[in-house]
Amino acid sequence: MSDSPSTPAGLLTTITSPGDLKRLSAEQLTLLAAEIRDFLVAKVSRTGGHLGPNLGVVEMTLAMHRVFDSPSDKILFDTGHQAYVHKIVTGRQAGFDELRQRGGLTGYPSQAESEHDLIENSHASTALSYADGLAKAFTLRGEDRHVVAVVGDGALTGGMCWEAINNIAATKNKLVIVVNDNGRSYAPTIGGLADHLSTLRLNPGYEKVLDLVKNALGSTPLVGKPVFEVLHAVKRGIKDAISPQPMFEDLGLKYIGPVDGHDQQAMESALRRAKGFNAPVIVHAVTVKGYGYRPAEQDEADRFHGPGAFDPETGALTAKPSLKWTKVFAEELVAIADERPDVVGITAAMAEPTGIAALGQKYPERTYDVGIAEQHAATSAAGLAMGGLHPVVAVYATFLNRAFDQVLLDIAMHKLPVTFVLDRAGITGPDGPSHYGIWDMSVFGVVPGLRIAAPRDAATLREELREALAVGDGPTIVRFPTGAVAADTPALRRVGPVDVLRETEGRKDILLVAVGSFAGLGLDAAERLAEQGYAVTVADPRWVRPVPAELVELAAGHRLVVTLEDGIRTGGVGDAIAAALRDAAVSVPLRDFGVPAGFHPHGSRAEILASLGLTAQDIARDVTEWVSRLDAADEVAEPAL
Amino acid sequence: MSDSPSTPAGLLTTITSPGDLKRLSAEQLTLLAAEIRDFLVAKVSRTGGHLGPNLGVVEMTLAMHRVFDSPSDKILFDTGHQAYVHKIVTGRQAGFDELRQRGGLTGYPSQAESEHDLIENSHASTALSYADGLAKAFTLRGEDRHVVAVVGDGALTGGMCWEAINNIAATKNKLVIVVNDNGRSYAPTIGGLADHLSTLRLNPGYEKVLDLVKNALGSTPLVGKPVFEVLHAVKRGIKDAISPQPMFEDLGLKYIGPVDGHDQQAMESALRRAKGFNAPVIVHAVTVKGYGYRPAEQDEADRFHGPGAFDPETGALTAKPSLKWTKVFAEELVAIADERPDVVGITAAMAEPTGIAALGQKYPERTYDVGIAEQHAATSAAGLAMGGLHPVVAVYATFLNRAFDQVLLDIAMHKLPVTFVLDRAGITGPDGPSHYGIWDMSVFGVVPGLRIAAPRDAATLREELREALAVGDGPTIVRFPTGAVAADTPALRRVGPVDVLRETEGRKDILLVAVGSFAGLGLDAAERLAEQGYAVTVADPRWVRPVPAELVELAAGHRLVVTLEDGIRTGGVGDAIAAALRDAAVSVPLRDFGVPAGFHPHGSRAEILASLGLTAQDIARDVTEWVSRLDAADEVAEPAL
Repeated sequence: MSDSPSTPAGLLTTITSPGDLKRLSAEQLTLLAAEIRDFLVAKVSRTGGHLGPNLGVVEMTLAMHRVFDSPSDKILFDTGHQAYVHKIVTGRQAGFDELRQRGGLTGYPSQAESEHDLIENSHASTALSYADGLAKAFTLRGEDRHVVAVVGDGALTGGMCWEAINNIAATKNKLVIVVNDNGRSYAPTIGGLADHLSTLRLNPGYEKVLDLVKNALGSTPLVGKPVFEVLHAVKRGIKDAISPQPMFEDLGLKYIGPVDGHDQQAMESALRRAKGFNAPVIVHAVTVKGYGYRPAEQDEADRFHGPGAFDPETGALTAKPSLKWTKVFAEELVAIADERPDVVGITAAMAEPTGIAALGQKYPERTYDVGIAEQHAATSAAGLAMGGLHPVVAVYATFLNRAFDQVLLDIAMHKLPVTFVLDRAGITGPDGPSHYGIWDMSVFGVVPGLRIAAPRDAATLREELREALAVGDGPTIVRFPTGAVAADTPALRRVGPVDVLRETEGRKDILLVAVGSFAGLGLDAAERLAEQGYAVTVADPRWVRPVPAELVELAAGHRLVVTLEDGIRTGGVGDAIAAALRDAAVSVPLRDFGVPAGFHPHGSRAEILASLGLTAQDIARDVTEWVSRLDAADEVAEPAL
Repeated sequence: MSDSPSTPAGLLTTITSPGDLKRLSAEQLTLLAAEIRDFLVAKVSRTGGHLGPNLGVVEMTLAMHRVFDSPSDKILFDTGHQAYVHKIVTGRQAGFDELRQRGGLTGYPSQAESEHDLIENSHASTALSYADGLAKAFTLRGEDRHVVAVVGDGALTGGMCWEAINNIAATKNKLVIVVNDNGRSYAPTIGGLADHLSTLRLNPGYEKVLDLVKNALGSTPLVGKPVFEVLHAVKRGIKDAISPQPMFEDLGLKYIGPVDGHDQQAMESALRRAKGFNAPVIVHAVTVKGYGYRPAEQDEADRFHGPGAFDPETGALTAKPSLKWTKVFAEELVAIADERPDVVGITAAMAEPTGIAALGQKYPERTYDVGIAEQHAATSAAGLAMGGLHPVVAVYATFLNRAFDQVLLDIAMHKLPVTFVLDRAGITGPDGPSHYGIWDMSVFGVVPGLRIAAPRDAATLREELREALAVGDGPTIVRFPTGAVAADTPALRRVGPVDVLRETEGRKDILLVAVGSFAGLGLDAAERLAEQGYAVTVADPRWVRPVPAELVELAAGHRLVVTLEDGIRTGGVGDAIAAALRDAAVSVPLRDFGVPAGFHPHGSRAEILASLGLTAQDIARDVTEWVSRLDAADEVAEPAL
């Protein structure tokens, strides 16, 4: 916790809009920052949420709101998980009791919540592009507004930022880029940052900032990312940096910094100068992730980037440990790597959350962290595969969307053996729409020659990962959800790749095709249908793309095929099986359950699934109705089944 | 043509592999370069192809093949359309008579053609990522090989290049990046290049190079792109550049240059030094696109980037002008912009080919060229839309795949009015698989709230573009094919958005849903089916996503629905209509025609369509067979239709 005790009066309760900040003295701002940190730790320790990033931007956020006039000026947060302080000072303190809970405050900016929010949740490295467009619009329409974009040093490893900087530099718009440089995105990624900062020594306060950053940076377990060094390189030879000068002229951008991002007055001063420019300018703020809360400051494994509930005194996580899908993958990957020297791992700045860190610990020379750069992850994997290796690219399912074109042309067209392991596939939960991994089976399902596996439990995850790594002539995807691994569900028999999990002798009414982690849901629904006298088969295709021929054959013996998938219905596994049935001239009708293509709100996985009708009860009810309709049609027509 | 006459002996005929180059004297190399230019102009003037880019890399390619040992060392061409000289010196001269023709030499590297080729055709800005992976693989496997990647200055505006450079800089691998800096990608995009080169003055030959580049650069009609200036900025203060030094140390990369890319000896010298480093190094070569062929050198509109057949003496194109889809769009966009000040245009370095240039000429302040940066094009369009404008982003259909994630989250999730105009949609032709615009209706069809229009002729293109620009609450796509606009096809009547193009009184057997430019094909097939006694309706849905409810109602009155689309079948319009029929409990069977999801070879559009069975004859035959089967089933079962 902050060393400053929270004032009994409670300054925080008097802040309901950014205007309230402008009346505060320097002393009051210091107290307020401390209160905000106490508030963040108290609230997030109960709900879970993005703690470390928000503790790091308290003074920066207060300074932005004092210098600029939101909502007339626009403050944009890249990615958006560092906007809690912004929420606190824009009238949303009360919402933090239900942060990230269904119906409660979102963990990201939200236009529905506040006129001060513009970009809702998003993937990394987009804010500068939004800012470029917004500033161009204001200029064209003759509106006198500033656009302020906050972007982390980690996000600068994403190519989109460079595309944006290149364009912003060609304009004269009122655009301030605040680089929140904490030396780590999810994990310490900027290997050479501390070293290169040492070449700057631009202002008297710099040594202090440098020490602070050096203390915050741990060792770099994987390959470091020196993209930020380009900015630093350009600053060579600059004499006095804190007063703005035409110094980034070659890049086309002014530069102010580095500024101690926890020095409220220095931040305000830098932002006021930046505002005065009326042209694109970078403000380089050095901050410490988790600042002011010791367990988060000293958090080498970055558990406080986005923890679940925890004990605010000790920092110990509240949740009981369970065997996670991620851990099953991580252990099996190391086991495979022990046997196969050609297997290498790639992560896009998320070694710990995706489980690649385990491989990196044992085989650092065979593990590559490419930064928040999914495009490069995919195409450098293509290069590795051309060189005779089999890369495993581990990313959250939602983030692979960034690399669709690269997976299609650079990997699949070249028939290269690259395996993508998609964690957090399907409905995830509290992070909301940008983090739902519901698109992959539809979007990547169109990629020619790409095979997609959806394991249903730990055993099939291990097995399907090995099968994926045995494929030598094209890309593979292995996708599984977030959280604790599902209960073991053994198969009765296997036909081709398809596991039959349940079946009856003799009459066969319904074939329930349950994809991956929906196996349990499918079996529950089948049980309910069986109680009503239907003969139900449940099959797990294991490999959902391409559609196994054995599944089509299996379908042909039933009266109705029902598919269940933890992904969008549009173009999903249901649609693919329906197309396979059509092409095979199998006229058994099909109905599909899945996630409607849409931007679904945050909540727990169970809540969201229930709200979408993806429960055994709902499924059994709908299927019963469909079969009744078939029965009615049969009485009229006696079909030729 | 080159001033040097081709030698009677014909040096070129003696070159069948890179080894043959290594025996040549400096004088012979000069002669050979001239012969190669004559060869390129003679061949491409008959077949069409990428002329300008290849004339610009003659000496560079010869130098690479003399310094490195392909195929042991790997030479990678970014994008790949500048690999003709590489093909010529690796034993493929004979193939140029059938360049880009079905069954003939591809216009890009091809593993099937040569062991010297690795990356096949691709989108821009990927080569450095491939190179990073390949070099890592060689290092890990202990193989002593160099990787050489040739990348244009235009491609450096793409974010992937920065992701790659950031990663390459963190390695010590044997990787040479040859920057082919001709000051223009498709068009002059690097606005400040000439100015910033003037700050270098690094070696005695530099003034000459600079003049050469200045002469080659025309004016910059749209916003220039200074990304390259970052590289240039880093070089400030460097004393002697031609001899390699630890100069790009802050970026982590060595730098050699600038080198006159048309000085064979200078290029070789620079590459030999680069090779000697055994670590990542940039060789900066300044070249002139179209060098040595006057019509291509003086080509401000960049017609010789990839011309059709032309008269080699005058440079005049052979093909008769026809009204192109692109021109219809370009004219209508300007007409709309005259009426609506909120309409702005965005291009990703292709103002001329996409027609945005017309808007840029009339409204330069409302037209943005973002470089080869589709991601930024999409998300900056989101920013423009947030600022109250309606951006029109004009790109080739295949290139929008680069921005799937941005269209999904940054635009659609925020319900922003951005219109994408996808030129070259569907089967295109001679550029082969990476340029077929066949993915969009499936991939972008999953985006919630996104509406897709596929006009069938000039009138519907104008109309649907206006309808798209009237949508205020989400993204729209208007997609049309390459080449001459299809013949006018008036509608008999309109139901909702759906145009009925043909129908019969009374009995209705088949509903043919013909998407966009396949309207004519659908009508031809319908004619054949009518001759066999079937009652055929032909409908153009105009808006294919979401599936119009009126189309589902129309389908309900028929015995069979047949869909025809100029895109992949997987997840395409056929699948979407089938799903809509299922959801509406309409049990009319559906069959779909489209492009199989795959990487189809190059050829003319007509040849490719014929090879895929997408002719009126093939369609009529298959439909006849399906209807016969329905008839047979009816005799048994008397269905309840």
